Amino acid sequence: MEIRPDEAAEYLRSHDDYLILTHTRPDGDTLGSAAALCSALRRLGKKAYLYRNRGVTKRFMPYVGPWMEDGSEGTVISVDIAGENLFPDGFKGEVELAIDHHPSNSRFAARTLLEPERAACGEIVLDLIKRLAGGVNKAEADLLYIALSTDTGCFRYANTGADTFRAAAELMDAGADAAAISLIFFRTSSRARLKLEGMVFSSLRTYEDGKVSFAIITRSMMDEAGATENDADDLPSLASRLEGSEVSVTVRETADGKSKVSLRSGDRVNSSQICAHFGGGGHARAAGCTIDCPPDRSAGMLLPLIREALAE
Amino acid sequence: MEIRPDEAAEYLRSHDDYLILTHTRPDGDTLGSAAALCSALRRLGKKAYLYRNRGVTKRFMPYVGPWMEDGSEGTVISVDIAGENLFPDGFKGEVELAIDHHPSNSRFAARTLLEPERAACGEIVLDLIKRLAGGVNKAEADLLYIALSTDTGCFRYANTGADTFRAAAELMDAGADAAAISLIFFRTSSRARLKLEGMVFSSLRTYEDGKVSFAIITRSMMDEAGATENDADDLPSLASRLEGSEVSVTVRETADGKSKVSLRSGDRVNSSQICAHFGGGGHARAAGCTIDCPPDRSAGMLLPLIREALAE
Repeated sequence: MEIRPDEAAEYLRSHDDYLILTHTRPDGDTLGSAAALCSALRRLGKKAYLYRNRGVTKRFMPYVGPWMEDGSEGTVISVDIAGENLFPDGFKGEVELAIDHHPSNSRFAARTLLEPERAACGEIVLDLIKRLAGGVNKAEADLLYIALSTDTGCFRYANTGADTFRAAAELMDAGADAAAISLIFFRTSSRARLKLEGMVFSSLRTYEDGKVSFAIITRSMMDEAGATENDADDLPSLASRLEGSEVSVTVRETADGKSKVSLRSGDRVNSSQICAHFGGGGHARAAGCTIDCPPDRSAGMLLPLIREALAE
Repeated sequence: MEIRPDEAAEYLRSHDDYLILTHTRPDGDTLGSAAALCSALRRLGKKAYLYRNRGVTKRFMPYVGPWMEDGSEGTVISVDIAGENLFPDGFKGEVELAIDHHPSNSRFAARTLLEPERAACGEIVLDLIKRLAGGVNKAEADLLYIALSTDTGCFRYANTGADTFRAAAELMDAGADAAAISLIFFRTSSRARLKLEGMVFSSLRTYEDGKVSFAIITRSMMDEAGATENDADDLPSLASRLEGSEVSVTVRETADGKSKVSLRSGDRVNSSQICAHFGGGGHARAAGCTIDCPPDRSAGMLLPLIREALAE
């Protein structure tokens, strides 16, 4: 059942003992939004905690670590989760309230508060906390600023709207330390990450007069750079940085020698259709798939499909 | 004489035939703010044009090129210019109205509207255009969005405040195409720029347990990457991306084999003091100088001074 923000606030007010889920391979929006909601619920005198997500990378831990607890009991809420395939095991069919902004949300929850026009789930949670507690405190402002800024690439992506900026202003007024957060998430990188970026930029392959760019990231490149998963956030953005490229492909070698593929495209090519050839999917402008081949061969299989799509 | 915004608006209303100056090595704030003001003055029925600045790089031309004219006659206004050393020749002592946000503004103009608390000069011009014309049109919104976003590193730098976000929201409401502007200025780079970044990241040198980072950019690196001045915006931000670095130094070889040095630092080291040793200067956290030596020797001269400052 889809519900309105006032109904979601009323539900949260009238229940207790909340367990809040975040999605697999968690990003700043799921983590920041969930932790901010958790904080606000505790301020209302409720019990609430975040289900321990093992995928949280290092940079997020100081902000969200304190809200995570071991356990699996409680009234289950999901935040920024589009489908049950992005859940930890054991919670299928258990979600009482889903708070989300993904248009593709599969309506897995008993109640769904879905606002697909929001750039980040953090904007929905900001609105909810205002309804529940009159406003956010400093910790919640920081967490929601992380949600908002990471989901918009620090206000660079096309999902950034006037309302996103208004929410950011409101969070700064409430004490969000935007400068500190930007320093960690957008202005600095580990030495390993910088080395890896250097290697990716030096080895970008382009086709069709630069309209198609391929970044191939092998395990040996990761090793040579000394990079771990902590250094591997948002790698597909690297290939898409090349000016004039209409389709950018990132092929990353997995631990078992297969290829994890990420496609990004402009208007002319449907990324999702190309990934569907290999059992993958996603959105028209950003999609992914896994190909059961080493990176070079996978790239060789993708290129003709992309050429064909460009020629249409 | 320092004047208030209402006095600046009154001055602009009561004069005509404006020539608007931008600073040398022009950035998005001086160009976007000046062109937006020019547009608004023309909407008021005034004559106005931008003095042709030869340093405008490629990405800015579609936005500001149409406002530039050959000529040197008119009531001179300067926008985002801190001192006369940043002028084109021939206008010293000629500026009737300076609009600026640099605290260091040397009060060279007959009238100065200075608002040092503003992140970008674009915020001051937005306020002026609202006073003059009730609001900005779509072209002015785009120009001021360029000013605002480039001067804050797309809202990543510490100068970004709640008011910056409110101005951005206002500009989007007035039609600024934030997505298109971000794509050009923050999401894509030329192949040569990416190559150059790759080379810089691969060759970063660190000292003092990573607290000091040096990026050296030689002419042969520029050549190898195929990079021109169009690809050389904001190079000092590269060395400062290294996590944990407190002082980052960028040494760029000039055409005549000298070193153009840029220093950025945190709380503990005063960049301006170090650059003063070589006749340079700037701010405590960002300063520059030119050293009459090749890059490697210049780096060797800077390192002991930085070590000393860190030890204090």
